[in-house]
Amino acid sequence: MILTDDDVCAASAAMVVAAAREALLQAGRGELIAPPRARAELGSVDYVFTVGGLPDGTSGFRAYRAGHPAGDQLVAVWNASGQLTGLVVGDELGARRTGALGAVAVDLLARPEADTAGVVGTGRQAWAQLWALTAVRELRQVRVYSPDQQHRRDFAARAREELGLMVWPSEDAASAVCDAGIVILATRSTTPVIDVTDIAVGAHVTTVGPKFADRHEMPSGLVAAAALVTCDSPAQAAAYPEPFFTGSTPLVSLADVLLGTSNGRRHSDDITVHCSVGLAGSEVLLAQRLLTQKRDEDGPLTSTPR
Amino acid sequence: MILTDDDVCAASAAMVVAAAREALLQAGRGELIAPPRARAELGSVDYVFTVGGLPDGTSGFRAYRAGHPAGDQLVAVWNASGQLTGLVVGDELGARRTGALGAVAVDLLARPEADTAGVVGTGRQAWAQLWALTAVRELRQVRVYSPDQQHRRDFAARAREELGLMVWPSEDAASAVCDAGIVILATRSTTPVIDVTDIAVGAHVTTVGPKFADRHEMPSGLVAAAALVTCDSPAQAAAYPEPFFTGSTPLVSLADVLLGTSNGRRHSDDITVHCSVGLAGSEVLLAQRLLTQKRDEDGPLTSTPR
Repeated sequence: MILTDDDVCAASAAMVVAAAREALLQAGRGELIAPPRARAELGSVDYVFTVGGLPDGTSGFRAYRAGHPAGDQLVAVWNASGQLTGLVVGDELGARRTGALGAVAVDLLARPEADTAGVVGTGRQAWAQLWALTAVRELRQVRVYSPDQQHRRDFAARAREELGLMVWPSEDAASAVCDAGIVILATRSTTPVIDVTDIAVGAHVTTVGPKFADRHEMPSGLVAAAALVTCDSPAQAAAYPEPFFTGSTPLVSLADVLLGTSNGRRHSDDITVHCSVGLAGSEVLLAQRLLTQKRDEDGPLTSTPR
Repeated sequence: MILTDDDVCAASAAMVVAAAREALLQAGRGELIAPPRARAELGSVDYVFTVGGLPDGTSGFRAYRAGHPAGDQLVAVWNASGQLTGLVVGDELGARRTGALGAVAVDLLARPEADTAGVVGTGRQAWAQLWALTAVRELRQVRVYSPDQQHRRDFAARAREELGLMVWPSEDAASAVCDAGIVILATRSTTPVIDVTDIAVGAHVTTVGPKFADRHEMPSGLVAAAALVTCDSPAQAAAYPEPFFTGSTPLVSLADVLLGTSNGRRHSDDITVHCSVGLAGSEVLLAQRLLTQKRDEDGPLTSTPR
């Protein structure tokens, strides 16, 4: 059975966020096996493999191409008996999975009453973060910024139409985030896209884009100002070949906050930060659930025979 | 587009051997890019990836599982534009590719008049070697040995039926290979399955099974007795974590023999040995050709839409 981006996009945010939550719980309990990424270098395009094993014996990998053209991603899932049970082709699964992990972070860390979001970035990752957010919070108002006026207008229009949200394009990043209880940075920028002072007291900020010491979209000062900095996989973050922009500030495992073994937000005025790296293995869990759901929908008569 | 073992088995030996020959030529000219295998360890089952890049920009990988259950293999092919153009699921592609590389070795190294083959082993690899051999030599007689009487009888019956060959089961390995001009060892044995003295003067011997210093199916004495020892990828052989049973004997690149930059057989009495490792990248080339052939057969109306 093969799923495409259309199948992935048809899944509800609630379903995808539930899968992300389960992946975090399994990771926190040491049940989700996710070895370091494997990489094979061809030159112009490299192949990167993130392999994951679930507690029920399901395992598989996501393969993506680093370089140009990046092209299609592929997720492949094997069951405990060694049968290849399904494939997911396209870029949406990885992005929606990342969005869903971000939504779990917001759910755990943002003020309970936070109902405004500021989004910087209008690409696939930004969209997936906002989309997933709708599963955990009722958003009263969203502002979005991209340097490209058309991009921010299109993003706002799409979010109004597809997500039913009140979304306005902003003239600059600062005005998009200044009064937001939830801030999402999802750009490719290698320099900070906001100032520390742009962020409201008590806000939660998620950074999806570059987060290395020498290039990062979030100002380092925000890490210093934050009461808590989480990551969906501190081990993955530590395994990157380059140091993170968070320096000596400890990255708290989001899974530990979910499990209650680490503290989340303590004060209403705290600023919280989440560094999104994309917990390895979570793609396999999400793919397994999407494949199972599709199989159930199709029923025994029309499902792809093995 | 997805191909299965049935599709792979439907391909002619001539077509698969032509793909193996082309892969060797590309490798010899430095056009086939094949980095070292990437491996991710889950524990009970590891995932291994052999990535390959072809001169036309096509690239991809074969993924297989090391451990139990090994289960289905997967080959995925991307075109130069980054589109995933097809997938091949199952164990046949890897085995037939290995068989085809073995057939190229026999074609280059066995005496021109060699028309008898002795096969030790009756598994998928042994079958693929014999099957591919039919594309390069008219075999007058084949003998096959496996310790399991039923296995050797079944193998012989299948070869008579499917390949139209005169194949007889032998009572022991020595009598299977003693008068053969072409000998194929394709077992899982960790100790030699024949003696050096079992091999006829002027024979060519291919070893597909274990070939490490501390466990090997071919007697080391045969390496010493051989005038020439080839390998489809000396670089891959050198990159194995364990030393080869060939010790200090140089492994000549089969591609160089094919290109004429290294000598092949010089004398009719020479014994030649081929160590089969499975040139990485050759799976991608073969998969590309199988996919193209299938697409041409299906025609534009019935091919799977992207």
